[in-house]
Amino acid sequence: MSETITAPHAKREEQAGSRQRLHQILESAHTGDITSRVIDRILILLISGSVIAVILESIVAVEVAYADFFYWFEVLTVAIFTVEYFLRTWCSVDCKKYAHSGMRPWEIRLRFIFSPYAIIDFLAILPFYLLMGGVFGDIDMRFLRCIRLLRILKLTRYSSAFDMLVTTCRENARPLGAAFFILVTTMLMAASGMYFFERLAQPVVFGSIPDAMWWAVTTLTTVGYGDVTPITPGGKLFGAIITVIGIGMVALPTGILASGYSTQSRLRSDKYRQQANQALDDGIISQQESSDLEKLRLGLSLGKHTASQILDEERVRHALRQVPEDSACPHCGANIHA
Amino acid sequence: MSETITAPHAKREEQAGSRQRLHQILESAHTGDITSRVIDRILILLISGSVIAVILESIVAVEVAYADFFYWFEVLTVAIFTVEYFLRTWCSVDCKKYAHSGMRPWEIRLRFIFSPYAIIDFLAILPFYLLMGGVFGDIDMRFLRCIRLLRILKLTRYSSAFDMLVTTCRENARPLGAAFFILVTTMLMAASGMYFFERLAQPVVFGSIPDAMWWAVTTLTTVGYGDVTPITPGGKLFGAIITVIGIGMVALPTGILASGYSTQSRLRSDKYRQQANQALDDGIISQQESSDLEKLRLGLSLGKHTASQILDEERVRHALRQVPEDSACPHCGANIHA
Amino acid sequence: MSETITAPHAKREEQAGSRQRLHQILESAHTGDITSRVIDRILILLISGSVIAVILESIVAVEVAYADFFYWFEVLTVAIFTVEYFLRTWCSVDCKKYAHSGMRPWEIRLRFIFSPYAIIDFLAILPFYLLMGGVFGDIDMRFLRCIRLLRILKLTRYSSAFDMLVTTCRENARPLGAAFFILVTTMLMAASGMYFFERLAQPVVFGSIPDAMWWAVTTLTTVGYGDVTPITPGGKLFGAIITVIGIGMVALPTGILASGYSTQSRLRSDKYRQQANQALDDGIISQQESSDLEKLRLGLSLGKHTASQILDEERVRHALRQVPEDSACPHCGANIHA
Amino acid sequence: MSETITAPHAKREEQAGSRQRLHQILESAHTGDITSRVIDRILILLISGSVIAVILESIVAVEVAYADFFYWFEVLTVAIFTVEYFLRTWCSVDCKKYAHSGMRPWEIRLRFIFSPYAIIDFLAILPFYLLMGGVFGDIDMRFLRCIRLLRILKLTRYSSAFDMLVTTCRENARPLGAAFFILVTTMLMAASGMYFFERLAQPVVFGSIPDAMWWAVTTLTTVGYGDVTPITPGGKLFGAIITVIGIGMVALPTGILASGYSTQSRLRSDKYRQQANQALDDGIISQQESSDLEKLRLGLSLGKHTASQILDEERVRHALRQVPEDSACPHCGANIHA
Repeated sequence: MSETITAPHAKREEQAGSRQRLHQILESAHTGDITSRVIDRILILLISGSVIAVILESIVAVEVAYADFFYWFEVLTVAIFTVEYFLRTWCSVDCKKYAHSGMRPWEIRLRFIFSPYAIIDFLAILPFYLLMGGVFGDIDMRFLRCIRLLRILKLTRYSSAFDMLVTTCRENARPLGAAFFILVTTMLMAASGMYFFERLAQPVVFGSIPDAMWWAVTTLTTVGYGDVTPITPGGKLFGAIITVIGIGMVALPTGILASGYSTQSRLRSDKYRQQANQALDDGIISQQESSDLEKLRLGLSLGKHTASQILDEERVRHALRQVPEDSACPHCGANIHA
Repeated sequence: MSETITAPHAKREEQAGSRQRLHQILESAHTGDITSRVIDRILILLISGSVIAVILESIVAVEVAYADFFYWFEVLTVAIFTVEYFLRTWCSVDCKKYAHSGMRPWEIRLRFIFSPYAIIDFLAILPFYLLMGGVFGDIDMRFLRCIRLLRILKLTRYSSAFDMLVTTCRENARPLGAAFFILVTTMLMAASGMYFFERLAQPVVFGSIPDAMWWAVTTLTTVGYGDVTPITPGGKLFGAIITVIGIGMVALPTGILASGYSTQSRLRSDKYRQQANQALDDGIISQQESSDLEKLRLGLSLGKHTASQILDEERVRHALRQVPEDSACPHCGANIHA
Repeated sequence: MSETITAPHAKREEQAGSRQRLHQILESAHTGDITSRVIDRILILLISGSVIAVILESIVAVEVAYADFFYWFEVLTVAIFTVEYFLRTWCSVDCKKYAHSGMRPWEIRLRFIFSPYAIIDFLAILPFYLLMGGVFGDIDMRFLRCIRLLRILKLTRYSSAFDMLVTTCRENARPLGAAFFILVTTMLMAASGMYFFERLAQPVVFGSIPDAMWWAVTTLTTVGYGDVTPITPGGKLFGAIITVIGIGMVALPTGILASGYSTQSRLRSDKYRQQANQALDDGIISQQESSDLEKLRLGLSLGKHTASQILDEERVRHALRQVPEDSACPHCGANIHA
Repeated sequence: MSETITAPHAKREEQAGSRQRLHQILESAHTGDITSRVIDRILILLISGSVIAVILESIVAVEVAYADFFYWFEVLTVAIFTVEYFLRTWCSVDCKKYAHSGMRPWEIRLRFIFSPYAIIDFLAILPFYLLMGGVFGDIDMRFLRCIRLLRILKLTRYSSAFDMLVTTCRENARPLGAAFFILVTTMLMAASGMYFFERLAQPVVFGSIPDAMWWAVTTLTTVGYGDVTPITPGGKLFGAIITVIGIGMVALPTGILASGYSTQSRLRSDKYRQQANQALDDGIISQQESSDLEKLRLGLSLGKHTASQILDEERVRHALRQVPEDSACPHCGANIHA
């Protein structure tokens, strides 16, 4: 299905072999592959350094003093990120998840380019080339700086726990959306009510519903800057009610995420339990099985203590299951499994 | 039971048929029914547009400049909402939940009129007619504007996830009420204590318990505007204790909602698991069963990942249940199910 | 064991009978007992009215204008509460929880007097008698007012959901205590660190660790009044770290309460499930069983939807359990239960 | 394995015996050992007193007035803590967790010195000796004061509930780290965006990304001091969006901790259930078993109510398991277990 199979020419095969190795190196490293881990560390350092540079560059004094350093560091960073981007696109053909899709190499690469990770990689280098091309003026350079900060998202590739949080949010997208709708609706009602009460007393900050929204947003999220507060008795009473409702606005998404995360944790524990169960089939956990379980544990972001307790429980259950195997049939006295 | 059966005349039957179709169209669309989806989209756009108009109209400059546009847009919106309201009332007879109630058409319609959704629909058009009739003066026009914002609640009809959140809150109404009682009691104690400590130092903002309530409310909800803070040592010490208690006031409803939402999630997963189990009865999930499961999944706001994992678990369980069917009876050697 | 048995004299028996009836009336009413419900309502109204009176009385203008009314209302309230207190103490002998304790009537009454509810009842009437006796001067009258507000706690007697929240907190008292210890420790560290950074820049508000505690408390509880904020770069950096840690300080007790409440909910669901199971023993839920289940549901603060789903699940489980009863034995063909 | 075994000389044995007793006394006391409990109480009082002294000493007036008292109290405290430190190190050989490690006494002591508890004990006495040695000047004395406050952590040794919270955090370290990464990333984006919008309007507080970070931190943690708020329309709109996202930043770690704590609670309940099950093996819970269960309950920080309910459930389950033991075999009529 993949290019390696459809192209039998020797050169292509060799090329595919080195491409597979490159894919392994670029992917988040598993224990053992030193080259891959070193490359990972270098890229993580470069991303972090680049983000710190963008932050420091925003301080005028620093920008003026080290302009040259920042320029050449940016050139170096973008050069490496660009090479990384093209290598990743080229190697995407060897990605496991496309392995049995039957797509052609260029189809896989096109699909990869529009995957979230590739878009982040693209946005990380885009501002530099736009600036080089002189597409934007001075003001927009500031805006491009913000986009350059998105490079920090390149780090998400190296964390399996991040994946779990994203999955939790995506699985609960609809209830979270409903909670967001309730929040926005309550904000509109709060702003509109406060506009009704405080319009005449404070025409500058409560002169219209959009103006009053600033108060509603900072109150219902329990941030409470205090730059805008009601002063009329009616406004204070209404504000107090809204403030209490604000607790619910915070509690709703927290409850959804707590419940959703709990479900994901349980599903992951079940996966580990299943593999532990298989490993215990013969009553003994071999070195290989133990190492596989540890790899799975890390991939699932499961705690050491929790994992060992699951293993203990499965051991007890396995031992209990063994007992009746040796017991005699109550009818004829022979072993029931013999 | 329904009108279609009690009225055998041809004309009435035809009328009932078109009414049923209208009911389908007005209801939140299921996949496939294009007409229903288009009508849904138009109504959602109209509701959103109408809400945005109310917000913009509250800005004096915008109100003056586009007075005519806002007036005619309001007339159009109310006209459509009025037609929608009467059609929904007329069609309510075909609503599933009244199908086997044995009530007469006018009884069903009367009951529908007092259902939450119908009351929202009524409130959405009421302000316009009140204003037309000249019932209120200028000041109240501002108040009617707030009521017009309630139109946003018409959108809740189109979200099944919203239903789930409402169910969670209603199922936990009593513990949430108890948490609210604890909050109000603590607020009263806090206000009364602060009134005792700060009365003489800050007679304007802590001059009476109702005055001190404003501080208590903003503190115990962790909003903390900072417009009113204790300044005496005793008040600061007492305030610090109240502030720490404030964490509990936020934690209590959050805990209740997290636990309640978790229960609702489990109940919904169980429903899905049950139908998955039935679909797997013959070992195979047909196209029809798969489409039914997907419809149920959307109706229950279940995540894709979670649903597929439930399906996998049920598949494994089904496979395990199959094994003993082929095993021989330990006593006579014959198949135990033969 | 109770007085009714140990005192065989006719007069005593009659007295015990009317005392039992009085106990029933004073206790939180069950459905059906009209007299008890009316007395409950009157007492709830009186408590609420009394609390509102204390709040209004704190407003100087209102206090001056209606001094007489407040005085006589207080006299009336305290009179009724005093009668209630003595009647409850007298009736405590008939309380279920002491029924089989084998204690003498005066022992039960003494124990009742030191129970939380009785202490609240006592504190509700104490301030009035202290004031009558002229024990305190004018300043302390303000303090007694705060104590009079404790009357609101008399309302807790009428809510079973409140009981559940209290149980949740008590069951998790030790982890909550540990979370509180972590909070206090972090506050001390934060105050001490901020004192180190801001001491010279803001000697008034960060001049000592106790002074800096006010900032630490308002920040770590995420209240954030903003009356005291760091201004030095070192203080701002340290403050930012403390602020982020503040999220954890709020998350910890919330997590404990969410988990604890979830456990209590499950335990209560299990109790309902158990009784539902018993009621289904004969396959049919009689009117009596249905009413008992509803009473239990209310006592456990269980949602209607959740309860009905538990009932459905138990029905399905019961039906499944019935199936093998009718199936033939695979060996001899006879009914396995015959 | 331990010194007691490797050293057969009489004197050494005697020494080891008194060392074991000392170890018991210094360890957190179990019920019954009066000496150990008294020593525990004295140390807890001394730690608390020492922490309070550090706090009071930071008030200039108090420091001047009671300089001598504070000095001699510090000398006393450090003397006792120093003795405690050396005794604990000496006794660490008898610690259960090293019992079967086969390490030599000095290896165990070295390992103990680098354990968290020993490091805290060391930091509690270090500042005094550094100050005695005149290593630091006056300014650093303030810093050493903060370190002296770390003594409060010595109290953690006496709480098993604290252990549970630490375990929950450690087991969920990776998801919590991912949530922290999301928080920092969002803060960077927020600061960078606000810098873009407010740079020109408020050059002092939004003049660079590090400056804008202060606003981002206080907003996304929902602290909201209000000392820095956006004033441009663009900044307010962007700020409102960030403020709403702030709810999620608080909800994420709360959800993780709630779910993690729930898992730890379940694991601990299971442990209790298992021992309850074993204790019920013979159908009766003896005095010894009951006392062991109570000790386990305290060690696991399990609530009384929850524990008793688990015990009840296990009792019911045990009773149900007994029933078939008395039932006859359906085939031959003989007791199936006979």
